[in-house]
Amino acid sequence: MVKIQSEVTVELVKHSASDTDVLWAARVSTAGEQSLEELHKDPERSKGLINFLMRDRHGSPFEHNSMTFFISAPIFVFREFHRHRVWSYNEESGRYRELQPVFYVPGRDRKLVQRGRPGKYEFVDGTDEQHALVAETMEASYRESYAAYQRMLEAGVAREVARAVLPVGLYSSMYATCNARALMHFLSLRTRDERATVPTFPQREIEMVAEKMEALWAELMPLTHAAFNANGRVSP
Amino acid sequence: MVKIQSEVTVELVKHSASDTDVLWAARVSTAGEQSLEELHKDPERSKGLINFLMRDRHGSPFEHNSMTFFISAPIFVFREFHRHRVWSYNEESGRYRELQPVFYVPGRDRKLVQRGRPGKYEFVDGTDEQHALVAETMEASYRESYAAYQRMLEAGVAREVARAVLPVGLYSSMYATCNARALMHFLSLRTRDERATVPTFPQREIEMVAEKMEALWAELMPLTHAAFNANGRVSP
Amino acid sequence: MVKIQSEVTVELVKHSASDTDVLWAARVSTAGEQSLEELHKDPERSKGLINFLMRDRHGSPFEHNSMTFFISAPIFVFREFHRHRVWSYNEESGRYRELQPVFYVPGRDRKLVQRGRPGKYEFVDGTDEQHALVAETMEASYRESYAAYQRMLEAGVAREVARAVLPVGLYSSMYATCNARALMHFLSLRTRDERATVPTFPQREIEMVAEKMEALWAELMPLTHAAFNANGRVSP
Amino acid sequence: MVKIQSEVTVELVKHSASDTDVLWAARVSTAGEQSLEELHKDPERSKGLINFLMRDRHGSPFEHNSMTFFISAPIFVFREFHRHRVWSYNEESGRYRELQPVFYVPGRDRKLVQRGRPGKYEFVDGTDEQHALVAETMEASYRESYAAYQRMLEAGVAREVARAVLPVGLYSSMYATCNARALMHFLSLRTRDERATVPTFPQREIEMVAEKMEALWAELMPLTHAAFNANGRVSP
Repeated sequence: MVKIQSEVTVELVKHSASDTDVLWAARVSTAGEQSLEELHKDPERSKGLINFLMRDRHGSPFEHNSMTFFISAPIFVFREFHRHRVWSYNEESGRYRELQPVFYVPGRDRKLVQRGRPGKYEFVDGTDEQHALVAETMEASYRESYAAYQRMLEAGVAREVARAVLPVGLYSSMYATCNARALMHFLSLRTRDERATVPTFPQREIEMVAEKMEALWAELMPLTHAAFNANGRVSP
Repeated sequence: MVKIQSEVTVELVKHSASDTDVLWAARVSTAGEQSLEELHKDPERSKGLINFLMRDRHGSPFEHNSMTFFISAPIFVFREFHRHRVWSYNEESGRYRELQPVFYVPGRDRKLVQRGRPGKYEFVDGTDEQHALVAETMEASYRESYAAYQRMLEAGVAREVARAVLPVGLYSSMYATCNARALMHFLSLRTRDERATVPTFPQREIEMVAEKMEALWAELMPLTHAAFNANGRVSP
Repeated sequence: MVKIQSEVTVELVKHSASDTDVLWAARVSTAGEQSLEELHKDPERSKGLINFLMRDRHGSPFEHNSMTFFISAPIFVFREFHRHRVWSYNEESGRYRELQPVFYVPGRDRKLVQRGRPGKYEFVDGTDEQHALVAETMEASYRESYAAYQRMLEAGVAREVARAVLPVGLYSSMYATCNARALMHFLSLRTRDERATVPTFPQREIEMVAEKMEALWAELMPLTHAAFNANGRVSP
Repeated sequence: MVKIQSEVTVELVKHSASDTDVLWAARVSTAGEQSLEELHKDPERSKGLINFLMRDRHGSPFEHNSMTFFISAPIFVFREFHRHRVWSYNEESGRYRELQPVFYVPGRDRKLVQRGRPGKYEFVDGTDEQHALVAETMEASYRESYAAYQRMLEAGVAREVARAVLPVGLYSSMYATCNARALMHFLSLRTRDERATVPTFPQREIEMVAEKMEALWAELMPLTHAAFNANGRVSP
């Protein structure tokens, strides 16, 4: 019954988000001689305007849009995620529901070994032995924890009490809603990319979520995404 | 050229907002034996679930939606509006644009006279004489201020400097984006309603904006709107 | 080495918070004929002003103050805590530090059994047998999980990977900074009290934290605390 | 009775803010082998830690502190200021008080003439004639507007109605409370500085406020201020 996996899930549930939203919002502030209709006939100017807004940190035009994601990932990922305060969240509740036994074990490509000192950590490949140890140790521990959870539930103990033994490697799921500005801030901290001007060291598992979100977003707002990359991947 | 008016404008530019969004978000948290498909077949249960969320102040399910309004109103209204911090704003800029001479004068039904003491103000009708005085005094003052603005612009003075003489009765316009929870909080403070459990004393002009927003929102999310009214018009 | 406990810790690390801060802030907005010096000579009026602000939901005067708490509690408490977005947090990091084996087991007075249905849950006492089962099951599971964590660390696995097996009953610690308005909002959702006008059902463990915070805050701002209680324990 | 001035006022009303607050908060997250006491004996390491936090954008340790400023400036400055949403504000209310006739006229060193196009504006000195015109035009317009305000008040019109004719060059005052992270974000957008990595074009009058705030803050948190300057004057 226990399920072990190494992937995270990100789905775009719904959205109201396009590059045009950015252009419209900017035009309210600064509308000059050229109308939006003219911008549409002139894609180079649209691109230029979005790039200018990003470069000079006019952040508000990037807020008039909305994306709702469904995310399934381990609790330790959500623990980091929820520190992003502009987003809206609804997460599966361990008080209202019996939690299902789905757990995370790092895949073979996850670098297991940390080197260096705080602020300069580097991660390097684990050996096959290390990977085998992690997989076995985690699975055994997860099974034991979940059995303890079940034992307490069967004895009539409340779900919110019994869950204390469940590990942070347990998968949870949530709805997360944000706008493009909040998403860019998230990506600037939770991905590594050679175009980034600020060094960041996200944990690989939240980066896996971030990468999937970025791919979905890039399709919705390609000009904004390109301007984000072209300006050091920092939120405006 | 100077335009005098007593109305405010509120248009719903775009939205991604429905009662179903609330139900879906709540189901992520608490999903039990009944699926959303079943909820759809059973409107009374949908209504009940939304009412329960509102009553017990489960606020987050009301955040996974988005509405963008175009608003045109006097600057003194926007001054109050911008204190609502969860919203996103893009307002017409007096630094980038020459501002147009459109000004606010209270309509005949606007109560002009304030009685009582702080916290217990009451507004009562002004006399015809008072209304005439206000209309004439405001219009004359507006015209004079705008002429001073023009004189400075013609002398080559920067827009951002010259605008200092423009009055807070000047119309401005903006895009404002929010979710239903933020809108309910706004309405709870900026409207008067006999169903409200908390006393509020909004200035009439921002209430005019709020009433138009509420009417537009009520069409998008009728069950949420009904639950808001049924639970004291307080944000969950 | 493993430590089992049933309490939470809350310490007031530092603060700049008093009822006078509220009075001063309110006077900037509304200052009338009476000066603050006069208010000081007339405590009844100070009390009345704070009560008026609370009742009519003038929230901003309650924001110009600051309290920093040190909190030690299980991860499942922090998971709920971090959903409060106006606060500032710095939590012990499982990426930078080896986490210590301190775990939560409910005390004898913690009601263990949940009855009723969602939205109407009631908690009732567990039997001695249930308490014994919970204590034994939890401790055994905690020990096993922590041993698995240690085994992986010893094999050279990175802390951020190995921690996946650690349970949400593990104690963590953090600095949390807020103002009185944010604290009142927190208390309105995370405590039960007969004076509250809105029904809430906080998990007992976060309520234990909330009660300790409330006691510390009540000493700093007694008039504000009294007004909070007198007005239905709802954040203004 | 009308008062004309060219300066803004910024006073530090109260604070609980020091570099040590940053160090303590960071230690909760990452505490390693060295204690805070040791850090105190080793100022170079304190400086290094703060610099590391700033460089790698660990923003939260800069939030556990608080500063309350009293600010007096023209309304058009506060209009920009209030778009900063993390701050707390209490502003003088034109609904509760009769506003006093204090108005802004640019000083002789304020560059009056704007050149170039949006996004590339440059400001250059105005001529003596332009300065004279601005001073005369503004003062005359201000006097006229304030007389209109008085005329309506004398006729019994409510303050909140009569104020519509008052210009955005009128001085207002407020309490504004923030933490160092929010202040750095404000400074990054509202000051010009050759050490800044991001181009910004604040209006001079809000920059005058920002510069005074920065000077006060630099005294409270010199290491944090130095790290802000050394890392491109971008908020972490």
